[in-house]
Amino acid sequence: MERLSQPVRRVTEHLASALRRDASGHAGPNALDRWICERIQRSIKAVSVRLVLWDGTCASAPPPAPVGDIVLHERSALLGLAADPEYFFGEAYMSGRLSVRGALEPVVEALSRLPGPDVTWHDRVRSWFTRPNSLPDSRRNVHAHYDLGNDFYGLWLDPELIYTCAYFDRPDATLEQAQRFKLDTICRKLHLRPGDTVVEAGCGWGALALHMAREYGVRVTAFNISVEQLAFARERARREGLAGRVDFVDDDYRNVTGTFDAFVSVGMLEHVGTRHFGALAAVLRRAVKRDGGRGLLHFIGRDVPRPLNAWIRHRIFPGAYPPTVAEVTTQVLTPAGWSVLDVENLRLHYERTLAHWAARFAANREVARVRYGPEFTRAWELYLAGSQAAFATGWMQLFQIVCAPRESAPPWWTRPAGPQSVAADDSL
Amino acid sequence: MERLSQPVRRVTEHLASALRRDASGHAGPNALDRWICERIQRSIKAVSVRLVLWDGTCASAPPPAPVGDIVLHERSALLGLAADPEYFFGEAYMSGRLSVRGALEPVVEALSRLPGPDVTWHDRVRSWFTRPNSLPDSRRNVHAHYDLGNDFYGLWLDPELIYTCAYFDRPDATLEQAQRFKLDTICRKLHLRPGDTVVEAGCGWGALALHMAREYGVRVTAFNISVEQLAFARERARREGLAGRVDFVDDDYRNVTGTFDAFVSVGMLEHVGTRHFGALAAVLRRAVKRDGGRGLLHFIGRDVPRPLNAWIRHRIFPGAYPPTVAEVTTQVLTPAGWSVLDVENLRLHYERTLAHWAARFAANREVARVRYGPEFTRAWELYLAGSQAAFATGWMQLFQIVCAPRESAPPWWTRPAGPQSVAADDSL
Repeated sequence: MERLSQPVRRVTEHLASALRRDASGHAGPNALDRWICERIQRSIKAVSVRLVLWDGTCASAPPPAPVGDIVLHERSALLGLAADPEYFFGEAYMSGRLSVRGALEPVVEALSRLPGPDVTWHDRVRSWFTRPNSLPDSRRNVHAHYDLGNDFYGLWLDPELIYTCAYFDRPDATLEQAQRFKLDTICRKLHLRPGDTVVEAGCGWGALALHMAREYGVRVTAFNISVEQLAFARERARREGLAGRVDFVDDDYRNVTGTFDAFVSVGMLEHVGTRHFGALAAVLRRAVKRDGGRGLLHFIGRDVPRPLNAWIRHRIFPGAYPPTVAEVTTQVLTPAGWSVLDVENLRLHYERTLAHWAARFAANREVARVRYGPEFTRAWELYLAGSQAAFATGWMQLFQIVCAPRESAPPWWTRPAGPQSVAADDSL
Repeated sequence: MERLSQPVRRVTEHLASALRRDASGHAGPNALDRWICERIQRSIKAVSVRLVLWDGTCASAPPPAPVGDIVLHERSALLGLAADPEYFFGEAYMSGRLSVRGALEPVVEALSRLPGPDVTWHDRVRSWFTRPNSLPDSRRNVHAHYDLGNDFYGLWLDPELIYTCAYFDRPDATLEQAQRFKLDTICRKLHLRPGDTVVEAGCGWGALALHMAREYGVRVTAFNISVEQLAFARERARREGLAGRVDFVDDDYRNVTGTFDAFVSVGMLEHVGTRHFGALAAVLRRAVKRDGGRGLLHFIGRDVPRPLNAWIRHRIFPGAYPPTVAEVTTQVLTPAGWSVLDVENLRLHYERTLAHWAARFAANREVARVRYGPEFTRAWELYLAGSQAAFATGWMQLFQIVCAPRESAPPWWTRPAGPQSVAADDSL
C-alpha cells in the first residue's frame, strides 16, 4: 500500500500484533476462533480449499478432496483473513503465520475463482490514500521494484532478463524461445523497416531495444528510470556493438523529445496510472509522426476497472494499476487522436510465462533465501503464484494494442501472420 | 433523421423551398450569395475542393488544382451548405440542386479530411429527437433499409448478397473471393468445430449462417427481422439442403432463447444503439455457455463517440449508431462478464469493399435510375462514396472483436493465422 495509508496500516498491524501475542503460546483455538473458521470455510465453499487451524483441526464440513490446505499457525492470521483477506493472506504468508499444504499455485488459483464484487470496500478505503505517479514518485516506485538487483532477477528470468509476458508459438516452447518470439512479434506488428526511428518508453534491461536495432535495422531511443537496468542495458549495447544505434536515456518517458516513426511500450502502462494517461497521450501526439507513425502498447490489463491486489501494491508493485482496454482507448488513444488497429489478449501466455518463472524461482529457492531472507523469498513465491492464478482465471489480462494516428494509414494491409507461418521459417 | 425531428426538418425545408423559388429563374448570385460563397470556400481551404455558383463563378481565391468542383445549381443549396453542411450536402446532392464535377469519392474524401469538432451543435440538437431502437422501432428501421428489395441489392452486391465489409487477403482479390475469405476468417476466429451450436444475431441474406453450417458442420440459429432477407435465406437453405442445420428465425435478437457454443453478429451492432447495449449484454450472458463459449462482433465503429452523419441517418440508415471499442467493451462485454480476446480493425478493407460496390452500382446506374428514380439513385451513389471516404480517412472504423465469458478459456492458444497461411492452402 502507499505512503499515506501507512498510518491506517499501522493501526491494523498493531491490532494484529496485540492479538498475535495472545496466540504466541500456541494456545488452542477458542470458541470464537472456531466460529470465525466456520464462517471463512463457508465463504469459500465454492472452491475446494481447506482451512486448518493451529491445532490441526478444521471446520465442521471441510471440502472432501481439497486442492490444498491453508494452515493458519496463529490467531492473528485467522483474524487478518477475516478482516481483509486480500491483504492479510499475503502478509501472513510472507511472515510465515500462514502456510499452504500442497502446491501453492492451485490453491491461490482456486481462491481467485471465488465470486466477489469487482471492487471491495477495502479497495475503496485504500483508494483514498493512493499515491500518484508523479515524476519523483515514479522514480521511487520503479526503484522499489526494478532495482532489487540484477542478480535477483537473474535467478529466475531468462538470460536476457525479459520481465514481461512471453509469446509461446507452441505451448512447449522454452521460455527463451518464447521471449525471442515475443520480441519478433512486436517488431512485425510495428512493421519496422530499416532506418525507422523508434522510441521505447520503459525499456527494462534493454532486450527489445537491442533486438529491434540488431534484427530490424532501426534506431532506438529507449527511456528508463531504473538505474540498475540502464547500467545493464548500456553495457550490453556496448558489448554487442549497438551503442551507436540504441540510445538508453535515463529519464521519464514524459520528457521525451523529437519525432519518431514508432512508439513502443512493453510492461510500462501498468506503472503509469490513469491519472497520468493524459500525459502519455500528449507524448504520443507530439513524439510520433502523424503520417505513417504507429505504436504498440503491451500491458497487464483487466476486463473491469479495479485496483491491483492491495498486498501486491504494498509489497511488490507500489503505484501499479492494470487498466482496461476502454481506459486505454478513451484516456490515451482518443486524446492523442489515435485509432485502435489491433488487440491481442495473451493472458494464457502470461500464465505460462509465470509458470516458467515460478519453476526457476523454486529451483533457486535456497539461494534466494540465503541472499534475501525467508520473508522476501516467500513474498516473491506468492506474487509469482498469485499472478499466474490471476492470468489463468481471467482475473487479469495481457493486452497488446497496435495503434496509429487516425490520419496515418495502418502499417499493413492484413495484420502480420500468426506464429504458424513464422514457425515455418528460421526466425526462431 | 428521425420521426420526432420531422417538424424541425419541415421548417428548415420550408425555408429552403422559399429560397429555392427565389432562385428558380436562374437569377445570378447577389452580393450576399458571393459573400457566403467566399466564407464557405475559406472554411474548406484545408482541402482542394472548389465551390462553383450557378452562374459558373467561384470565390476570389479558389484552390489552384482542385480534386473536383462542387457545383451549386440554386441559391437554396448554397444556403443549406452554409446552415448545416453535413445534412444539406446530401439533401442537395440527392435532389440535384448540387452536383460534383470530377469523381464523386475524392471530393467527399477531401471534405472528410476537414478538421472539425467531433460533435457539432447540429448533432447535439438532433440528438434530442433521436428515435430509440425499441422492438417495433427496430423492425421499422430495418425494414426501411433492408427491405428495399433483393433485386436492388442484387444490382451491386456479390451474388451471395453479403452486405458487410469483406476481407481481402490480397488487395487485388475479387469481391467474391474477399467475401468468402471474410466468412472463413470469422469461422476460424470463432474456432468452430463440427457439432457446435451457433446463434447469429442479424443474419442478412444468410450467407454466413449457410457457410458455417456447410463448411464447419455447425448448427445455426439465425435471427433477422427483415422479411425480404429471410425469404431469400430460407429459400437458399432449402435449395442447398441446409434447412435442417440452419434455422432462420423471424424475430429480434433480444428474444433469443436456448444456450449456444458461439454468438456471432456481423454488421448488426450499428443498429442496436448504446441505449440497448445492456439488452445485448443480457443475451450474451444467458445465451452462450460460460464454459467454452465465445463470440464475435463485427461492426462499423469509431475512435470517438459521435452520431452518424445526419443525412445518412435520415435517408439511408434510420436509428444507426457506430459505437467505439470502449462503448462496446464497457456497455456490452463488461456487463456480460466477458473478456476481449482479439480486435482487428479492417477499415481499409471496407474502403475497398465500398469501392467495389460503388463500381458495380455505377455499372448498373441506368437500371437503378429507371427502376428507382434519379433521386434515389443519387442518394445511394453519395452514400456509397461517403462511406468509402469515411473508411479511407479513418473517420469510421471496422472492428472485429472476438470475445468470451471470463471463465471460459480462450478458444485458441495462438490466434488464427493471418491470410498468408490461408492463401497457401486451398481454402480460397
